Amino acid sequence: MYVAMNRFRVAKGREADFETIWRTRESLLHELEGFVSFALLKGPEREDHVLYASHTIWASEEHFRVWTRSEQFRKAHANAGKGPSQTLLGHPEFEGFSAVLVEENRAAPQAAE
Amino acid sequence: MYVAMNRFRVAKGREADFETIWRTRESLLHELEGFVSFALLKGPEREDHVLYASHTIWASEEHFRVWTRSEQFRKAHANAGKGPSQTLLGHPEFEGFSAVLVEENRAAPQAAE
Repeated sequence: MYVAMNRFRVAKGREADFETIWRTRESLLHELEGFVSFALLKGPEREDHVLYASHTIWASEEHFRVWTRSEQFRKAHANAGKGPSQTLLGHPEFEGFSAVLVEENRAAPQAAE
Repeated sequence: MYVAMNRFRVAKGREADFETIWRTRESLLHELEGFVSFALLKGPEREDHVLYASHTIWASEEHFRVWTRSEQFRKAHANAGKGPSQTLLGHPEFEGFSAVLVEENRAAPQAAE
């Protein structure tokens, strides 16, 4: 299990703009082998921004690497930077994580709620 | 869906110590309502540390809040700070995230691999 996160510092008052970009995008992730789930996450509010994170779970880091070299990746990022300016403070910060330990509640309902 | 993450800056050379603490802990998360999954994640290596994150998915933020007030939470944190010193640089940093958008690959194998 591999978690690919991009952290976005969204300017205060621009949250709706930022969410709309994500809500209206065409996602091609489901076409990729090893794709498990995607979530756009809204995190803590800081003094001048709200932290958001795109959060994609892949079966392995190798599946993620294949995605970054795919046509689908190129398409997904073709419009990056074309959104309304002043939405983001700085560039997104990428962090990739490999699972060391995993514990699942098999009895739990789906997380997609 | 709510993601509770704690970010740990682990000193270089102390990764095995840190992972052992997690591997040998008794987890009581499965006793809690709304618990979906837990992972200990190993992230990018920086100049003086390796970033790790504990990553717990809850059905909702309210389920997470109940956990932080529970007896299981108290037990889980009773030994916090008693591990070997010099393992962590600074304190863990907590970040909680609420899902804005979720997309799942229903055909994917379990993430617990």
